[in-house]
Amino acid sequence: MNEFELIRALTRALPPHPAVVAGPGDDCAVLDLGVPGRVVLFKTDAVVEGVHFLPDTPPEKVGHKALGRVLSDLAAMAGTPVAALVTLALPKGFDPAWPQAVYAGLRALADRHGTALAGGETTAAAGPQAWLSVAALGTAPAGRRLGRGGAQAGDALFVTGELGGSILGHHLEFEPRLAEGRWLVEHFPVTAMMDVSDGLAGDLQHILEASRVGAELLRDAIPVRRAAKQRAREIPGAPTALEAALRDGEDFELLFTVPAAQAVPLHDAWRRAFPGVRLSCIGRLTAQPGLRLLSRDAIRALSPHAHDHFAERHGD
Amino acid sequence: MNEFELIRALTRALPPHPAVVAGPGDDCAVLDLGVPGRVVLFKTDAVVEGVHFLPDTPPEKVGHKALGRVLSDLAAMAGTPVAALVTLALPKGFDPAWPQAVYAGLRALADRHGTALAGGETTAAAGPQAWLSVAALGTAPAGRRLGRGGAQAGDALFVTGELGGSILGHHLEFEPRLAEGRWLVEHFPVTAMMDVSDGLAGDLQHILEASRVGAELLRDAIPVRRAAKQRAREIPGAPTALEAALRDGEDFELLFTVPAAQAVPLHDAWRRAFPGVRLSCIGRLTAQPGLRLLSRDAIRALSPHAHDHFAERHGD
Repeated sequence: MNEFELIRALTRALPPHPAVVAGPGDDCAVLDLGVPGRVVLFKTDAVVEGVHFLPDTPPEKVGHKALGRVLSDLAAMAGTPVAALVTLALPKGFDPAWPQAVYAGLRALADRHGTALAGGETTAAAGPQAWLSVAALGTAPAGRRLGRGGAQAGDALFVTGELGGSILGHHLEFEPRLAEGRWLVEHFPVTAMMDVSDGLAGDLQHILEASRVGAELLRDAIPVRRAAKQRAREIPGAPTALEAALRDGEDFELLFTVPAAQAVPLHDAWRRAFPGVRLSCIGRLTAQPGLRLLSRDAIRALSPHAHDHFAERHGD
Repeated sequence: MNEFELIRALTRALPPHPAVVAGPGDDCAVLDLGVPGRVVLFKTDAVVEGVHFLPDTPPEKVGHKALGRVLSDLAAMAGTPVAALVTLALPKGFDPAWPQAVYAGLRALADRHGTALAGGETTAAAGPQAWLSVAALGTAPAGRRLGRGGAQAGDALFVTGELGGSILGHHLEFEPRLAEGRWLVEHFPVTAMMDVSDGLAGDLQHILEASRVGAELLRDAIPVRRAAKQRAREIPGAPTALEAALRDGEDFELLFTVPAAQAVPLHDAWRRAFPGVRLSCIGRLTAQPGLRLLSRDAIRALSPHAHDHFAERHGD
C-alpha cells in the first residue's frame, strides 16, 4: 500500500459535513465558515529529519520548507494565507539555537506572505530526529472553481517555473506561488489547479482522475530545471534530465488548465504580471484517457506512478 | 530551558497581525476572519509514540487522544469545533491495520462532536516510532472574554471532573469538555478559563501570570481521582494522591474563574445542566501573588513548576 492508496483508504469513508465544501482529495480542505464572499482553506503538512531534510540542513531552510509546503498548497487553491501554527518535535539534548534558527526561517517566509505565526508547540521527539508539523489557514474567493476536478478535454495545460533536480537546493528555497495562484483565478477561467510536489507525471494524474480526462505532454515544452540537467550530466546512472523533470518531487510549482482559447491571452498577461517567472504551456487534455508524451517523432505512454518517496522508504 | 521557556522564547517576538485576536499564550489562537458574530479558533498538537502513548496502546485510543487534546483546547475557549486535519507519521514496515484503527478512534470522537475530519496526510517517520499531529479549527462567540487574562482577586476558582492518576487510563479516554465550556461562557461571566493538561499547580500559574493575581487552593476541596488514590496506595514511593492531583498531567478538565457572587448560582445551574459531571470550587484568587494551599491547620506555598514531561525527558 503506497501513500496515496493509504490516504485514500483512510479518508474514503469520511462522512460529509455541512461546513466542508471540499475535503480529502484537493490541496487544501475548503470550509464554509460563513465569511461573506470567502471560503476558508485549511491545510497541514510535516517535514521529518532524515526524510525531508538532513541533520546538516541549515535550520532556517528547514523552517522555510516546512511553512513553504503548506503555503504552496494554499497557492494551488488561490488562497491568501492568514495564520499558521507550528508543532516542533525536538530530540533529547537538542541545541536551543536549532529551533530558534528554524523559527527565523518560518518567520521570514511568514512575514513575506502576510501570514501570522499564531502559536507554537514543542514536544519531545521519540528518537534522535527532529520534525515539524505546520498547519495553515487562509481564505479564497467563494463561488470560484478551486481544485482538480474541472479540467475538460481540449484545455491547455500550464506549469509555472521549472521542474526536476529540486534536491540540489530548490526544495529548501522555493517561494510558494501565492501571488500567481490568486492572480490566475482572478483573471482567467482556471478549470483545475494543484501544486506539483510529487513530480509532474504523478501529480498530473490527480487532475486527470478527478476530471476524468487524459493528457498529451509536449516533450520539448517541459521546462527542465538547470539542476536536473546538471545531475543527469554529472551523476553516473542518474535519470535523464527529462525523466527528472517528469518524476522528481518537491518542485512546488503550479500546474493548471485553462480553456484552449485562453492560452495566448494568458501567456501575454502573465509576462506583464510576472516577468521574472517562467510559464510554460506543456500540453493539452484529451478525451482519451491516460498520459502520453509527444516528441517530434514518437508518442510514449507515461506510467501514472509518481515518484513515491513514501513507498520507497517503506519498501513496497 | 524547559518547554514553557522555549515556547515563550520562540513566540515572544512574533509580530502582531490584524487578523489575530489572541496568539501565543492561550489554549488556541483566536482569529477574526470576518465571520459575523464569531471568532475562529485554531489549534494544533501532536502525540508521539514513547512519549504520549506506547507501542501496545490500543490504536483507537491513540486516535482518540490525539484529537481529544486539541478539542480540549477548543473547549477551554468555549469553542464549537468545525474541522480537523491529521498528519500521521508511520515507521517503516507498519501494519496497515494500525493507522486504520487510529482513524476509527479519530472518527468516533470527531463524529460525537460534529467535527469534520477534512483530510489526512501520511508521512514516513524517521525512526521506529509513529506520531500524529492534529490541527483543529472551530468558532466561538465574538466579543466574549476568552482565555486566561481576565481573572480578578476575589474570583472563585473551579475545576470540572477529577484530577490526578490520569496515566491509569483517563489520558486515553477523556471526553473533551466542549459542551461544558460553551455552556459556561454562555451562562456565566467567566473571567478566565483553560484546560488542565500539565497539572493543576502548574497550569493555574498561567492564569495567575496572565491575570496578575495569586490564589489560595483549598486542600480538601480538590477533587482527587480514584486512580490517584489507587496509585498512592499501591505503588511504593508514589506521590500522595493530593500531590498527584496537583502535579500529574493530562487531566483535560476545565479550570476557570467567575466572580465570587456567581459561585452558588453556578453550582446550582451546573447540577441541572451536567448532572453527571463533578464541579468543584477549589479556591479563590487573591491580590497577593503566589499560590498557597490551605488545609484546616496549615498554609503551604506551592511551587509554580508544573510537572514537566518535556524537561524530564530532556534531562534538564
